[in-house]
Amino acid sequence: MISMEMMNKLEQKESRIIEIRRYLHAHPELSFEETETAHYIEEFYKNVNIDKIDTHIGGQNGVVVTIKGVKPGKTIALRADFDALPIEEETGLPFASKNPGVMHGCGHDGHTAYMLILAETLAEMKDELEGTIKIIHQPAEEKSPGGAQGIIKAGVLEDVDVILGIHVMSTMETGKIYYHAGNTQTGRADFTLRIQGKGGHGSSPHLSNDAIVAGSSFVMNLQTIVSRRINPFDTAVVTIGSFDGRGVNNVIKDAVTLEGNVRFMSDETKDIVEKEVRRLASGLDETFAVTTELKYSNDYPVLYNDPAVTEHVSQVLKQMDIKEVNEVAETTPQPPSEDFAFYLQEIPGCFFYVGAMPDKGQFYPHHNPKFDINEKSLLISAKAMAAVVLSYCGKSV
Amino acid sequence: MISMEMMNKLEQKESRIIEIRRYLHAHPELSFEETETAHYIEEFYKNVNIDKIDTHIGGQNGVVVTIKGVKPGKTIALRADFDALPIEEETGLPFASKNPGVMHGCGHDGHTAYMLILAETLAEMKDELEGTIKIIHQPAEEKSPGGAQGIIKAGVLEDVDVILGIHVMSTMETGKIYYHAGNTQTGRADFTLRIQGKGGHGSSPHLSNDAIVAGSSFVMNLQTIVSRRINPFDTAVVTIGSFDGRGVNNVIKDAVTLEGNVRFMSDETKDIVEKEVRRLASGLDETFAVTTELKYSNDYPVLYNDPAVTEHVSQVLKQMDIKEVNEVAETTPQPPSEDFAFYLQEIPGCFFYVGAMPDKGQFYPHHNPKFDINEKSLLISAKAMAAVVLSYCGKSV
Amino acid sequence: MISMEMMNKLEQKESRIIEIRRYLHAHPELSFEETETAHYIEEFYKNVNIDKIDTHIGGQNGVVVTIKGVKPGKTIALRADFDALPIEEETGLPFASKNPGVMHGCGHDGHTAYMLILAETLAEMKDELEGTIKIIHQPAEEKSPGGAQGIIKAGVLEDVDVILGIHVMSTMETGKIYYHAGNTQTGRADFTLRIQGKGGHGSSPHLSNDAIVAGSSFVMNLQTIVSRRINPFDTAVVTIGSFDGRGVNNVIKDAVTLEGNVRFMSDETKDIVEKEVRRLASGLDETFAVTTELKYSNDYPVLYNDPAVTEHVSQVLKQMDIKEVNEVAETTPQPPSEDFAFYLQEIPGCFFYVGAMPDKGQFYPHHNPKFDINEKSLLISAKAMAAVVLSYCGKSV
Amino acid sequence: MISMEMMNKLEQKESRIIEIRRYLHAHPELSFEETETAHYIEEFYKNVNIDKIDTHIGGQNGVVVTIKGVKPGKTIALRADFDALPIEEETGLPFASKNPGVMHGCGHDGHTAYMLILAETLAEMKDELEGTIKIIHQPAEEKSPGGAQGIIKAGVLEDVDVILGIHVMSTMETGKIYYHAGNTQTGRADFTLRIQGKGGHGSSPHLSNDAIVAGSSFVMNLQTIVSRRINPFDTAVVTIGSFDGRGVNNVIKDAVTLEGNVRFMSDETKDIVEKEVRRLASGLDETFAVTTELKYSNDYPVLYNDPAVTEHVSQVLKQMDIKEVNEVAETTPQPPSEDFAFYLQEIPGCFFYVGAMPDKGQFYPHHNPKFDINEKSLLISAKAMAAVVLSYCGKSV
Repeated sequence: MISMEMMNKLEQKESRIIEIRRYLHAHPELSFEETETAHYIEEFYKNVNIDKIDTHIGGQNGVVVTIKGVKPGKTIALRADFDALPIEEETGLPFASKNPGVMHGCGHDGHTAYMLILAETLAEMKDELEGTIKIIHQPAEEKSPGGAQGIIKAGVLEDVDVILGIHVMSTMETGKIYYHAGNTQTGRADFTLRIQGKGGHGSSPHLSNDAIVAGSSFVMNLQTIVSRRINPFDTAVVTIGSFDGRGVNNVIKDAVTLEGNVRFMSDETKDIVEKEVRRLASGLDETFAVTTELKYSNDYPVLYNDPAVTEHVSQVLKQMDIKEVNEVAETTPQPPSEDFAFYLQEIPGCFFYVGAMPDKGQFYPHHNPKFDINEKSLLISAKAMAAVVLSYCGKSV
Repeated sequence: MISMEMMNKLEQKESRIIEIRRYLHAHPELSFEETETAHYIEEFYKNVNIDKIDTHIGGQNGVVVTIKGVKPGKTIALRADFDALPIEEETGLPFASKNPGVMHGCGHDGHTAYMLILAETLAEMKDELEGTIKIIHQPAEEKSPGGAQGIIKAGVLEDVDVILGIHVMSTMETGKIYYHAGNTQTGRADFTLRIQGKGGHGSSPHLSNDAIVAGSSFVMNLQTIVSRRINPFDTAVVTIGSFDGRGVNNVIKDAVTLEGNVRFMSDETKDIVEKEVRRLASGLDETFAVTTELKYSNDYPVLYNDPAVTEHVSQVLKQMDIKEVNEVAETTPQPPSEDFAFYLQEIPGCFFYVGAMPDKGQFYPHHNPKFDINEKSLLISAKAMAAVVLSYCGKSV
Repeated sequence: MISMEMMNKLEQKESRIIEIRRYLHAHPELSFEETETAHYIEEFYKNVNIDKIDTHIGGQNGVVVTIKGVKPGKTIALRADFDALPIEEETGLPFASKNPGVMHGCGHDGHTAYMLILAETLAEMKDELEGTIKIIHQPAEEKSPGGAQGIIKAGVLEDVDVILGIHVMSTMETGKIYYHAGNTQTGRADFTLRIQGKGGHGSSPHLSNDAIVAGSSFVMNLQTIVSRRINPFDTAVVTIGSFDGRGVNNVIKDAVTLEGNVRFMSDETKDIVEKEVRRLASGLDETFAVTTELKYSNDYPVLYNDPAVTEHVSQVLKQMDIKEVNEVAETTPQPPSEDFAFYLQEIPGCFFYVGAMPDKGQFYPHHNPKFDINEKSLLISAKAMAAVVLSYCGKSV
Repeated sequence: MISMEMMNKLEQKESRIIEIRRYLHAHPELSFEETETAHYIEEFYKNVNIDKIDTHIGGQNGVVVTIKGVKPGKTIALRADFDALPIEEETGLPFASKNPGVMHGCGHDGHTAYMLILAETLAEMKDELEGTIKIIHQPAEEKSPGGAQGIIKAGVLEDVDVILGIHVMSTMETGKIYYHAGNTQTGRADFTLRIQGKGGHGSSPHLSNDAIVAGSSFVMNLQTIVSRRINPFDTAVVTIGSFDGRGVNNVIKDAVTLEGNVRFMSDETKDIVEKEVRRLASGLDETFAVTTELKYSNDYPVLYNDPAVTEHVSQVLKQMDIKEVNEVAETTPQPPSEDFAFYLQEIPGCFFYVGAMPDKGQFYPHHNPKFDINEKSLLISAKAMAAVVLSYCGKSV
C-alpha cells in the first residue's frame, strides 16, 4: 500500500532529516536576508526528480518546487518557512548558530528539513500519485510584511486547491498533533504614535507642554479599548511595547514616541481596534494641545483554517494511526500571528501543530534564546504531512 | 480731638453693638431672601440723623444710607453685608438661630451691628466731618452672583472716591488687624460638565459607552491644569466637588454630571484655567465618543486692594493706636472669594481683616456649624473703620 | 406512541398555556416577594394528579411538585422560575402589568405557564412513565443571591439525576432552539468600594484629601484587569455601574462610593478578577492616603451545561422533529448570568434556549420596558421539554 | 572719596573685563572638570597684591582669594562661579566656544571676568579698606551636588559675616538691578524610579506584567501632588523629564525607568513633595504588583536672601547712583535653583541680579544654545558689587 511504503521510506531517511535540520540550525539567516539558505535548498533539489523549480520568487528568496503525479488531479501546496530570528542563541547545542545574533529560535530549520526529505520522497513515488504537489519554501515569516504575500503575488497559488502547513511546537508534547478549525491564530496590527508637545525648563511647566503626561494619559485611556469596546466573548490585545520618553530629569520633554501592537481574532475586532486607537490618538490633540502623528498598519490577518479541510485533515491523521503519534486532538486558538494566514485568505487550507517538546519535559517557549525542539517531531511532521498529501493525491485504485 | 471723641462714643455704645449682633444672629436669612433684615436696618435708621436712605437697591434688599459732613469733601463708601448661610447651627449659644437650617456662620451679623452703630455715631458728629459717607448694607454676599453687582448697577459708586470693608475673622487673633495690598482674595469660577455616553447591560460593554470611565479620565486629566499649565509662582485651584454617576452596579452608566470650582489670583490665570477646562471637556468628545455639555461661568473676580489706599489704611490704623488693638500687620492673600471684589474693580479701596478668635483660643472656621466670633472684635471693627473714615473726612483744622 | 400522544395533548392545551401566561403577566411580583404567584401555582395543582407538593421551599416561595411514573427509573428535575422585575411596563399589551413598577420583563411568566400545563400533562400520562419527575417552581431568579440556593439547601436535588431548564429568548427567532455545551452563561460578582478621604473648602485642597480623584484613578486602573490580566482568549467584564460622588462644587469631597459588577466564564478568571480588584482597592490606601472599604461577593457561578446531557438533549430535539421547530442548533455562550448555574454545580443538566422573537421581527431585549415574547414559544417550550423528559422517563417497551 | 575712586578705576578696566570674559567664553569647561579655568584664575592672581590664595578647595577646582584691609573689620565673601554647560554653542560669536559640546551658556564667564578685575582693584585699594574680603571662585554650580558644599566643608565661610553674589540675566534689561528678600530661588530635588514588572509576548498580557502601564498610571497620579497636596499660595513643580520605556512593539515591557525633578519655595513644601512621591511610588507595588526602586535626593535648597542684608544691599545700590544703572528694584522670586543657596543656609547674605539683555532687545534664555549677555552688564556688576563691599569695608573716616 502506498501509505505504508511512504512511511517506511520516511523512517529510513530520519537521520538525513536531522542532519539537514542541524546544518540549517548552525547557519541561520535573518528574514529577507536568507540567501544562503535559499541556495542550500536549490542545491538539494539538483539530485531530486522534480518537475520544476522556481527561485527568487516574489523578488525575494522564495523557492517553489513542483512535483507532478502520473495522472492529473488536485493541486496541493505544502509550505515550509526557513528564516531565523535576531536572537543570540544560548542553547549550548553542538550545532548551535555560527552566526552571532541570529538563531533558528522558532523551528523553521526543522520545517525545512522535514519538507526537503518529504519532497524527495514524493518525487520518488510520482508514479503512485495523481495531481500536483507544490512545495513552497517561504522566506521571511518572522518579519512584517512577511514572505507569503510575495509568493501570492508571484501567482504560485493560482492553480492550487488546498494549502497545508505545519508548525512544530516546543510547548506541546511530542507524539501529539493538534488542530483547530476556523479562526486559529491572531491577526496583528502595529502602530507608532509620535506626540509632539513643547520642551522647556523643568521649573516652568506653564511655558512648555509636557509630552510625557500626554503619552501617559494615552496609555491609560488605551486600556479601555479592550476593557470597554470589545465584545467580552471576543479576543483583542492592545499593547504599548515601547514608550520612548527618554530625556533629562529637569527638562520638560518635548516629544515622545510610543509603539503599539494589536492582536485580534476577527476582522470586526480588527476594525474596531483600529478605529479606537485612531480616535484616542486624535483626541490627544484637543485634550493636551499636542500634535500627534499616528502610523497604523494592519499586518498579518487572522489565520482561518477552512473547517472542511481541517475536518478532513484531522480525520486522515486519526485514521492513519502513525505509530509515533499517540493523539490527534483539537486545540484552542493560538495567540501568535502567522503569515500563513495570507494563503488562507486566498484558498482553503489547514495549518496544524506537531508537538515538539523535549523528552525531559522542560521546554523553552518559541523565540527564547534557549528554545529547542525534540527532533522526533520532524519524522512525525513528515509522516503527518505525507498522510494528508496522499489523502488528496494518492493514486485511486 | 475728633478721633478721641469718636472712640469714646463708640466705646459707650459697645453693648448696643453686641445687642444688635445677637438679635441678627438669632434671625438669619438666606442670600437674596433677607427682607426682614433689610427692614430691621431701615427701621434702625428712622431715629438717626442721616441725609438719605435708599432701600431695595438693585432690585434686591440693599439699603444705602448717606451721611453728609458740614463741608464738602471726599465721598467714602463703607460696606457691611448682612446675609446668612444654609447651615444648621450647632453653637448652642443662647442667641442661636431661630430659623432652622439658616445660620450667621460667617460674621455678617457682626458686620451689620458695628456698621449701624458706626453710622449712627458718624451722623451724630456730622458737624465735624467734611465730605460724604455712604453706608452700603449689602445683601447676598454668600451666593453667586452676589449682591454687589446690583449695588453697582444702581449707581451707588458713581460719586464715591474710596470704598472700605472689614471682615471679622474667627481664624485670626482678637486684637490684631491684618491687611494685604494688591491681589488679596481669590477669584472664582464654576462649571458643570455633563458627559453623555450610552447605557447598557453590565455584561456587554461593547454595546454601550461607559460615561463613568470618560468622567474618571476627565478628572485625572483635569489635575494637569494646575500641575502643568499654571505658573508655579501663581495660584490656581481646580476642584471637582461633585461626581454624580449614581447608578446600578450591573448597568453601564449612560451619563454623568460633574460640578467643578476654580480659584485664581489673576485674570491671566482665570483665562488659562477656563481655556484648559474647555479644552479638556471638548477633548472627551473625540477621545471617548461621548457628547459633552459644559457650562462655565466666571463668578467673583480677584479682590484687588488698591496699594495706595491700603498703605494709607495701614498707616492710619498703626498711628491711631486703638487701645484694644495690639498689632496691625500685613497678612498673606486669603483663599476665599468675596464679592467686595466687584466694587474694587470700579473704584479704589481696601478690604481688611479684624481678628475675632474666641478668647479661649479654640475656634471654628467660617461656614462651620460651630462658628462663633469674639464679640470684642465688633468694637474694634467700629473703631478701626471710624479711624479710617476720619482720616478721609475728619474736619481739617 | 407516547411522544405523539404527549405532543397532541400539549397542542390541545395551547390556549390554556397562553391564558395562564397572560394572567401571570398581569400580576407580576418582585423577587423574594412573589407570594401570590406561589399561591396561584399551588392552587393550580389542586386539580392535578400529582404525587406530592412541597411549598415554601427553602424558607421562600418555592413550590416543588413530584410526579411518579408507574415504574421506577431516573429522577429528572425541571425548573421554571416565576419572579418579575422592578420595571415599569411600557408594552401597552391588554394584559400588561397591573402592579405599578413591576413587570414580567424576562419571560418567567411564560416559563411558569408552559411548565404548569406540561406538569398536568405528565401527570395525566403517569402510566406511561418510568421514574420520577420533579417540577421546581423557583422564585427569585432575578435578584442575588437568587432562589436556587434555597431549593438546593432544602435537599430537592438529592435524588435527582439530571436537571433541565429552558429560557425563552426574545432575541432569538421563534421556531429555533439553541444549546451550548460546557461554560454557557457568565458567572457574576458584585462589589462596593467606599473611599474615605477628607472633606474641605474647595479653595484649600492641601487641607483635604479629594476622594473623587482617588475614585477616578481607581476607575482608570480598573480597566487594566480586563486589558492586561485576563487571557485574551478568555472572557471577563469589570464595570463600575455607580460612582456616587455627589457633592457641592466648591467643597472637596470627603468620600465616594463605587459599585461594581464582574462577569467571567471560568473559575480561574473569577479568582483573578477578585484578586485584582482587591489589590487595586488596597493600593489606593497607600497611593492616595485614603481609607478604603471593599465588599466583594461572588454571586451566580458560571453556568456549566454538562456536555453529555447537552449532547443527549440536542440529539433528542433534533430527532423529535417538533413541527413548530425548524432548527436545533449550537449557539455561542450568553453574556447574562443565571442562578440555574447553582443546580449545575450539584448535578449534571442542561439549560437551553427557545426562540421567542415576535413574528414581525422587531424585538426588545430582556429587561426592556417594552419586552415581549412570541407566545408560540410556549407550546414549543412545552413540547421540547416533554420530548427530553420522555427520552429519560418514557416507558421502555 | 573712596567709592568715586573705585568706580573710576573699574571704568578704566572695562575693556580688560571684556577681554577676560571673551577668553573664558571661548574656553568653557564642564562642571567638576574646570581645571584649566581654575589654573587661569590662579595665574591671574600672580600679579595681584592679595594676601592669600587657596586652590583645589574642597577637593575640587575652587580658588579662594583673601584680601585684607589695613584695619580689622567685617569679613565679606564674594562669590563668582566659573563652570560651563554641556551645550553646543550656536551664537556665531567671534569668541564662541572652542570646545565642542561645551558652552558658557549661563554667564559664569562674565561673573568670573568682573570678579577678577574687582578683586585686583580691591587689592590695589587695600589701604582704604577695613576688614577682609574673600573672593570665592566656585566651580560646578551647574551640576548637582554643586561646588558650594565643598567650599563650605573646607571652612571658607567660618569667619565670614556676609556673603554676596551676582547673576547676570539675559532676560532682564541692561541698566537695571533687581533683588528679592526672603525665599528667592527654588529649591530642587531629583528622583529616579525604576518599576520592575515582567516581560512577555505582546499577545499574552496575562502572563506578563506591563511596566509601561504602571509607569503611565504613576505619571498621571503624580500630577495630584501639585494640584491637590500643595497650598495653592505656595509653589511646587514636579516633572517627569524622562520616561525610558523603550522596547519592541510586540513585547510587553518588563521594566521602565522614570527620572523626575522637583522645585519648591519652602522646606515644608519640600517635605510634602518628597513624602507624596514616596507614597505614590510605594503605592505602585500593591496596585500593579510591580517592584519599585526609588532614589530620591534633595538637592539645592531654597535660596533665602537675608531680609536685613537685602535691605542694606538695595539701599546701598540706590544711594550709590551708579551712572550705568537706571533702576534698582524688587523682583519676583525666580524659578531656577542655585547652589549659592547652600552658603545662605550658613550665613546671611544676598544674591542679586544684574540685567544683561542685549541692546537690541532680542534675547535668548539661559541654557539656550544662542544665549548671550550684554557685556555692559559686567562693568555694572563690578561697580554694584564694589559699592556693596565698600558699604561694609570702606574705611570709616
